[in-house]
Amino acid sequence: MTTTHDDVARTPAPRAGHRVPTLVDVAEAAGVSIKTASRALNGEPNVADATRGRVRAAASTLGFTLNSAASQLRRGTAVRTVGLVVGDLANPFYMGLATGVEHALREHGLQLTMASSDEDAATEHAIVEDLVHRRATGILLVSTLDEHGELRSVGDRGVPLVLVDRAPSGIEADAVVIDNVAGTTAAIAGFVARGHRRIAFVGDLERLSPQRERYAAYAAALAAAGLPLDPALVVRGSHSAVAAEGAVRDLLALDEPPTAVFTANNRVTIGAIGAFRDVAHPPALVGFDHFELADALGITTVGADTAALGREAVAALLRRGDGEHVPATRALPATLVARGSGERAPA
Amino acid sequence: MTTTHDDVARTPAPRAGHRVPTLVDVAEAAGVSIKTASRALNGEPNVADATRGRVRAAASTLGFTLNSAASQLRRGTAVRTVGLVVGDLANPFYMGLATGVEHALREHGLQLTMASSDEDAATEHAIVEDLVHRRATGILLVSTLDEHGELRSVGDRGVPLVLVDRAPSGIEADAVVIDNVAGTTAAIAGFVARGHRRIAFVGDLERLSPQRERYAAYAAALAAAGLPLDPALVVRGSHSAVAAEGAVRDLLALDEPPTAVFTANNRVTIGAIGAFRDVAHPPALVGFDHFELADALGITTVGADTAALGREAVAALLRRGDGEHVPATRALPATLVARGSGERAPA
Repeated sequence: MTTTHDDVARTPAPRAGHRVPTLVDVAEAAGVSIKTASRALNGEPNVADATRGRVRAAASTLGFTLNSAASQLRRGTAVRTVGLVVGDLANPFYMGLATGVEHALREHGLQLTMASSDEDAATEHAIVEDLVHRRATGILLVSTLDEHGELRSVGDRGVPLVLVDRAPSGIEADAVVIDNVAGTTAAIAGFVARGHRRIAFVGDLERLSPQRERYAAYAAALAAAGLPLDPALVVRGSHSAVAAEGAVRDLLALDEPPTAVFTANNRVTIGAIGAFRDVAHPPALVGFDHFELADALGITTVGADTAALGREAVAALLRRGDGEHVPATRALPATLVARGSGERAPA
Repeated sequence: MTTTHDDVARTPAPRAGHRVPTLVDVAEAAGVSIKTASRALNGEPNVADATRGRVRAAASTLGFTLNSAASQLRRGTAVRTVGLVVGDLANPFYMGLATGVEHALREHGLQLTMASSDEDAATEHAIVEDLVHRRATGILLVSTLDEHGELRSVGDRGVPLVLVDRAPSGIEADAVVIDNVAGTTAAIAGFVARGHRRIAFVGDLERLSPQRERYAAYAAALAAAGLPLDPALVVRGSHSAVAAEGAVRDLLALDEPPTAVFTANNRVTIGAIGAFRDVAHPPALVGFDHFELADALGITTVGADTAALGREAVAALLRRGDGEHVPATRALPATLVARGSGERAPA
């Protein structure tokens, strides 16, 4: 093979209206790493002749030229997409997150594409692999996995990854989460200060790390106040508003019902609102996660700014391009907004 | 070129974990139509030798074999994606729609990817083109366009398209919409039956066809009842809950305020709830679009089952594969659910 870099650059430009092939496409078609593909096309040494030939043939077939790709990138004509993978499309928490992500991406000429794992590991894996193969500019992942070791290969294949809302485990990764401990502690301490001693915890799936953090903070806050942790007042695993409504009704039917209820996410809070509807003197209620109608309903909530969470996730993703990089987890504050329901005294 | 089909079939299988190249990829790499690529690889006549050579070289470089592609499709191992393009990620209407779409797709082994046009025509165009280039299995589009002629090329390029929530204009296309006229007529007729004569209309952007249909039905229902259409009681173009709250506050401050308010979508309804918060005797209120907390807030709404809208859209997409196809628009019923706010008598 004696093809020179100039030959490659003279290949006809791809037809208008079609996706511009990237160096990554060439590397994959030739079965080599991106670094090798780049070295081969730039005429650098230490590339076997057979490899160089394979890379150049692939570039020629795909209509790839180093020049056109660079100029496309400069003009920003190719659609560059960032994938956001969430756990449940029916949860408004993710709507707020997605809106923050979308607006931040738009400022950088990037397009959001969103998909849901439905909290299923196999679905999450399929979505992430699809984004890697499609050469997404980055992936923002609310992971349903307990352990994130398998995600190491995403970064290895050149796609920046930021974990969102759930802390990394078994992997060094950038992450943006919520300060669940401080938020939950504030809620429980507020109940304690108002004289509550029977404080219930109603949560979503235990395997989700924010749920574990909020439960641990609940238990620690009770202990700090010298209150016993009564298992009869703890319900975990309510993954829908309907399930949570049933769980809260059961708590209200106890011989000694709770005088205060902490609901560990927005789905559970909606369930509690449903359960309280026909109750003359409902327990005090503080829910984790702010939601749009909390004001209208007078529901006290503690939570983070979900749009800010999205913006911070995009910022973390874009920082990845800046030279030497040390993965970091950033926690956004969760603030308590009193609206009436959380300030009720024990009956 | 004397390569035979057998030679192509013996090309090494693509590496595990990588996207399986499709016939479409080969056709694009070779710069020919899919039909030509298929004929060339299958050894059919009427293909120029040079073309056949180019197609086979592309297939070889990409690692495409007719056999592996067919078996992948049968086993369903490749991720097949349907794109859902909505107008606003912060609107729960689309959450319900997306959930219905996602569940229906899952039954067919298809994955949903979602993106928002933010009601911007250029963004919608970029998203749709990206889905076409990525060989999406189909596109479900809540279009922000007034006229859909430019979408004809989507189907021409082999990607099935179904318009959702907004009726097709200037194009023969499959569509699934809501019966906006019947729903709105029921709401206004209910107000009239309770003796209201000053009935306000507060709506979103006029250029969105459901908004135009709901406004026309409002005007027609007033005319049918022999009531004048008072421009002072009509506000259009409130695209956020915050804008709608301001608009409703202005209506309440009129010398002769309305005794009933029809809010033409869920964002506007949320705004009205905010505006009514500190009002001792608010007007009657019926909102278009059901929403989760309508029960808890006692808000009467008229609307369709958004999850059913999503399921119907997927069904329309999948029907596209069944032989001869005549595009059709299906309208889902909008039903009125009385919860108190709509049944208030005039002050």
